[in-house]
Amino acid sequence: MALGSNSRITTVGLDADDTLWHNERFFRLTQERFADLLADHADPDHLAERLLEAERRNLGHYGFGIKAFVLSMIETAIEITDGQVPGHVIGEIISAGKEMLAHPIELLPGVAETLEALAPGYRLVLITKGDLLDQERKLAQSGLGDLFTAVEIVSEKTAGSYREIFASHGDGAERAVMVGNSLRSDVIPAIEAGAHGVHVPHGITWALEEAEPPAGHPRFHQLAGIGSLPDLIHRIEE
Amino acid sequence: MALGSNSRITTVGLDADDTLWHNERFFRLTQERFADLLADHADPDHLAERLLEAERRNLGHYGFGIKAFVLSMIETAIEITDGQVPGHVIGEIISAGKEMLAHPIELLPGVAETLEALAPGYRLVLITKGDLLDQERKLAQSGLGDLFTAVEIVSEKTAGSYREIFASHGDGAERAVMVGNSLRSDVIPAIEAGAHGVHVPHGITWALEEAEPPAGHPRFHQLAGIGSLPDLIHRIEE
Repeated sequence: MALGSNSRITTVGLDADDTLWHNERFFRLTQERFADLLADHADPDHLAERLLEAERRNLGHYGFGIKAFVLSMIETAIEITDGQVPGHVIGEIISAGKEMLAHPIELLPGVAETLEALAPGYRLVLITKGDLLDQERKLAQSGLGDLFTAVEIVSEKTAGSYREIFASHGDGAERAVMVGNSLRSDVIPAIEAGAHGVHVPHGITWALEEAEPPAGHPRFHQLAGIGSLPDLIHRIEE
Repeated sequence: MALGSNSRITTVGLDADDTLWHNERFFRLTQERFADLLADHADPDHLAERLLEAERRNLGHYGFGIKAFVLSMIETAIEITDGQVPGHVIGEIISAGKEMLAHPIELLPGVAETLEALAPGYRLVLITKGDLLDQERKLAQSGLGDLFTAVEIVSEKTAGSYREIFASHGDGAERAVMVGNSLRSDVIPAIEAGAHGVHVPHGITWALEEAEPPAGHPRFHQLAGIGSLPDLIHRIEE
């Protein structure tokens, strides 16, 4: 597809966690609490490594989200203590997970203004992974729900899923921009599908979301903050 | 809405678990295993009651599905043993959950033939709750995927969600039939939305899905098996 310049963008896909609101920081805080709980059994670095292994191993069973994270923490606590972990520690891990699921969202700077500026001229589509109910709760709480034409909660973000979503809620990936903090999930597969991929880095990224930036690709863009998105889209359309 | 007779049905919504394939029986088998694991601490009936309480209490946090069930079993195991549950028992609960997530699906009798008979004349929409990834896995494994026009995995089945789904994937609820084993989730809210609700009872039903049948409602139907669905739809259209 060589639409290149002069191509009118009609659809803007937006990732949710760490693109619209804080997320990873709550995982990190919970992980610190987890390390404290198991301080007598493992040093924090080793524990973090074992937890990441469990998360990677369990991704195919559990998918993404807080429930998966809690189950992987419990599994790691059992493993690292050779089954000696006290029941109350498991109870604390479950409570920590419930607190995450109840935590009020905090919008990132510039998000509300940017979406309000874009909504009259573009179809906004929220595209996110994670627990269905939790993502719906966060969207409802964000107050941004009415700005979106569609919400797609998917189990995995692939070039195929972007192609499908931008075909059904827009005019195809070639007329779409996808915006997010994860190169691996938001940017690279969207570019592969034919869309523009806009990376808005967030300070902290989960190890399983890391990837090399597709530097030099004509449809790859990077912004310091989401506030510059309207300008970028206008430049793409010129 | 009084379309009543002579209304052409264009869209058929179908529940998945225990409508297209077995599901509840795997929950029951896992629950028996759970009772065996905790046999020294609680009698099975009392344990089942406490687990159901935990599931009900956690529904708003976790939503539906196997991960939620596993987390509620772990919580119940901790509570019922006053935190004394051994780590290996928690490990066994986690393993049982993973086995459920990996269990091959078994189609219910008549499902494949019925969907194949309906697909040329109606839009078939799969409408289900539960874990996103798990439901996608089961649909992929069922071999039925190509027969569906759309798949909607929702966090809760309400009149509102049926209205929305039948508006976007069909010609509105008035021209739709919703088929499922749960009166509470599949039949009653679909009728409330304006659709026909077809109850195909399954031998075993989760306590949280039980409800009174809307006996006498003109759009309420009950079938002994899904195989009679094409005939029922033709009668509705007459």
